[in-house]
Amino acid sequence: MDFRSDNTHGAHPEIVEALMRTNQNRESSYGADSITARVRERCRAIFEHDVEIFPVLTGTSGNALSISSMTLPWGGVFCHEDAHIQRDELGAVEFFSNGAKLFPLAGPDGKLQADVVDRAIHAIGLEGRTAVPACVSVTQATEAGTVYALDELRAIGQVARKHSIGMHLDGARFANALVALNCSAAEMTWKAGVDVMTFGATKNGAMAAELVIAFKPGLADAIAPRWHRSGHRLSKMRFLSAQLDAY
Amino acid sequence: MDFRSDNTHGAHPEIVEALMRTNQNRESSYGADSITARVRERCRAIFEHDVEIFPVLTGTSGNALSISSMTLPWGGVFCHEDAHIQRDELGAVEFFSNGAKLFPLAGPDGKLQADVVDRAIHAIGLEGRTAVPACVSVTQATEAGTVYALDELRAIGQVARKHSIGMHLDGARFANALVALNCSAAEMTWKAGVDVMTFGATKNGAMAAELVIAFKPGLADAIAPRWHRSGHRLSKMRFLSAQLDAY
Amino acid sequence: MDFRSDNTHGAHPEIVEALMRTNQNRESSYGADSITARVRERCRAIFEHDVEIFPVLTGTSGNALSISSMTLPWGGVFCHEDAHIQRDELGAVEFFSNGAKLFPLAGPDGKLQADVVDRAIHAIGLEGRTAVPACVSVTQATEAGTVYALDELRAIGQVARKHSIGMHLDGARFANALVALNCSAAEMTWKAGVDVMTFGATKNGAMAAELVIAFKPGLADAIAPRWHRSGHRLSKMRFLSAQLDAY
Amino acid sequence: MDFRSDNTHGAHPEIVEALMRTNQNRESSYGADSITARVRERCRAIFEHDVEIFPVLTGTSGNALSISSMTLPWGGVFCHEDAHIQRDELGAVEFFSNGAKLFPLAGPDGKLQADVVDRAIHAIGLEGRTAVPACVSVTQATEAGTVYALDELRAIGQVARKHSIGMHLDGARFANALVALNCSAAEMTWKAGVDVMTFGATKNGAMAAELVIAFKPGLADAIAPRWHRSGHRLSKMRFLSAQLDAY
Repeated sequence: MDFRSDNTHGAHPEIVEALMRTNQNRESSYGADSITARVRERCRAIFEHDVEIFPVLTGTSGNALSISSMTLPWGGVFCHEDAHIQRDELGAVEFFSNGAKLFPLAGPDGKLQADVVDRAIHAIGLEGRTAVPACVSVTQATEAGTVYALDELRAIGQVARKHSIGMHLDGARFANALVALNCSAAEMTWKAGVDVMTFGATKNGAMAAELVIAFKPGLADAIAPRWHRSGHRLSKMRFLSAQLDAY
Repeated sequence: MDFRSDNTHGAHPEIVEALMRTNQNRESSYGADSITARVRERCRAIFEHDVEIFPVLTGTSGNALSISSMTLPWGGVFCHEDAHIQRDELGAVEFFSNGAKLFPLAGPDGKLQADVVDRAIHAIGLEGRTAVPACVSVTQATEAGTVYALDELRAIGQVARKHSIGMHLDGARFANALVALNCSAAEMTWKAGVDVMTFGATKNGAMAAELVIAFKPGLADAIAPRWHRSGHRLSKMRFLSAQLDAY
Repeated sequence: MDFRSDNTHGAHPEIVEALMRTNQNRESSYGADSITARVRERCRAIFEHDVEIFPVLTGTSGNALSISSMTLPWGGVFCHEDAHIQRDELGAVEFFSNGAKLFPLAGPDGKLQADVVDRAIHAIGLEGRTAVPACVSVTQATEAGTVYALDELRAIGQVARKHSIGMHLDGARFANALVALNCSAAEMTWKAGVDVMTFGATKNGAMAAELVIAFKPGLADAIAPRWHRSGHRLSKMRFLSAQLDAY
Repeated sequence: MDFRSDNTHGAHPEIVEALMRTNQNRESSYGADSITARVRERCRAIFEHDVEIFPVLTGTSGNALSISSMTLPWGGVFCHEDAHIQRDELGAVEFFSNGAKLFPLAGPDGKLQADVVDRAIHAIGLEGRTAVPACVSVTQATEAGTVYALDELRAIGQVARKHSIGMHLDGARFANALVALNCSAAEMTWKAGVDVMTFGATKNGAMAAELVIAFKPGLADAIAPRWHRSGHRLSKMRFLSAQLDAY
């Protein structure tokens, strides 16, 4: 199985077809359209949970919006040292959070280990002068192409809850992980402790479509204004939603 | 002539067709593809000037990227009190510039008047404790649906140069203005003093596609990293470029 | 009576003497010293209210810390067009709040008028795309040297409560106002609706000493980390506190 | 020799005496006074170099102002993992720089090693997607109480120049290092490659007084507005300068 990025593939025909259909109708702009509502309903069914969704165009914006919704400017974000948010986004999390600090941690196979995360949060929290622990971010499947087992994810979720911090899942390759683990979307997310995720469709055949999916009540209020002022709230939302709908 | 937003219209068939064609080929990701290069060449021809382009998905991000490329965190941005950047973007310019201050000015028919701008810049510059004048932003056609005459634009451009500050043009409805004035794209932009513009295709038939077009050398270096870290640098750039190409 | 800034006067002898006495003892650093505790107790007595205090060195930092404690990055701050926070602090509020927007309002004698504030908040709140109303800031005595009557302050406080936003008082010349109105410190602050104030001692004989005084429970938690990371948390707090103690 | 912080000591009598003398005269506010000018002249003599100075009240603000003057929001700052800027300032550098990223590096005795710094800058620079290398920050004497030899400092300075990035020196315990190395202030700073330093007087007998000293032409223009809008530009500058004058 090849979990590497497939950014160089074209869009899947069904997605383009969905876009064509979308184009037939006129609907209200700014996300209050029926297709966006349908995607939300579908996500609620898939994840067996009440969720709020925010369609965006890139994984970078999805991650930054997700993480900044639970990270104050003096917050600390714990992630793997090879995480996309640490290595590839030119400080997007720092930008959206207005100056949070990332704590990149080592771990075999591109995976965070729960006990390493636990000790790191403990050390930073003790000092109280470096940052205030805010959340842990995991990538599933990881940047190394590996997949966290459910109990590995749950162990990290328990560490997050123990320290009363949030948990973000970068799901750029979420579908690959679902197939690999043969589990439900719910088990791999909120049941394991995930508060908010970036659900990436771009690398799975869509043209450019990612979803921020908020499981935890209240996070949507922290995401919506950032979504608007960062310029990711599309006026022609239905085209984006249509791609996700097809996906 | 109706210059109001046509966000509720579907995408023009030729644009969807262009997307379909695009989908046949595999090309390198992150903007280094031949379609993006072709859009750049086309812009250089249309504007009769060496330009750098940054495709984005919303007018809000295009405006914020443009303006922040010439505005320090303590900078002052002069605009009409009904400008989209002041009224509708939930502080996007403030966000991307890390805290700049907008100076909304009154003016009939949604237009800035050169002498009003001149006095405002002079007053702020004198104090030196409110903000450091950074740029003036005009919208063409304006939010009120009116169109600046060329000499009105040039007069504002001269005020900007007199104070050694930049000039931004919000071209969400640029095509309408071109038709109304029956002039060249060059005359309405860099020849009138514009350093960087947001060229909006969204409201003219494209699904969601805007271009930041930098006329002034050096601005691209200030735009590129913000484009990346704000999550507006699409990995599947060619789909976006393809829409612009068709447009 | 002359309410203008007396920045050019030397420090009052009693304040220097207090500094000399302070210098005799060694105490713990970073504000957990007995003098700071004594200033807090004194403030609680003076204001007849449970308060938290944050000594700082400038009015600019006091205002920015106060206002950012109740203003999100997309927040709107309503103030007089001649307010120090709008005209003289080079965007300090924008910096500390990470991009909030100020709404400078006209008003005779340097004073905000409750009905003008009410309409402005209403208009911005209705749109929902310009900013989210966050607080109103009044200066007492004003930058024009005038003094709000108690019922003028209370009317503004009622407008703030009506819109569920905060109220800040810039008390750079607070003592002058107290003398002018012959009222209690409590009446002029939390009883009128003030949630947090900048209490300026600099312009009244101290070397450089201002206090952020938080009346509303919970604000201190939003002030403390900003106080630290903005570099205003002095390690030799007792010298600062000693000046305030004498004052 | 004990290089630990002496924050718990009282202020040196000569410094208090200097404050008393200062108090006799009335002078212009905001730093344009003769004492500030005298401190600048003295620094120019001590450092044998044309310098600009910015008096501040804390080491945290001094470091953050210094580093942000040469670090863009997407910049990378290389420092020791035990550096005060990484561990004790609650993200002050991130705040003042609007989101830069620190790269904490390991090293024996609290010291950065030139070759480790070289490799780290090289790795980050190569990727171009993590951060843009902006500067290296060394602490002299270090947080561990050790002192860099001159050739160790120079080696780091050469690495900085090789990569065309800046060099900051956190001189919270600068005087201790001068005594230990028995060298000139010039040798330990600009002659070794330092562009800007935080010169700490607080821990050496002053009440609360640090200086940002800019050696590199042009940096002052980037420091001055941040100094103002962060609330560290004291209106009664002469009291601060007087302490430094005595020191």
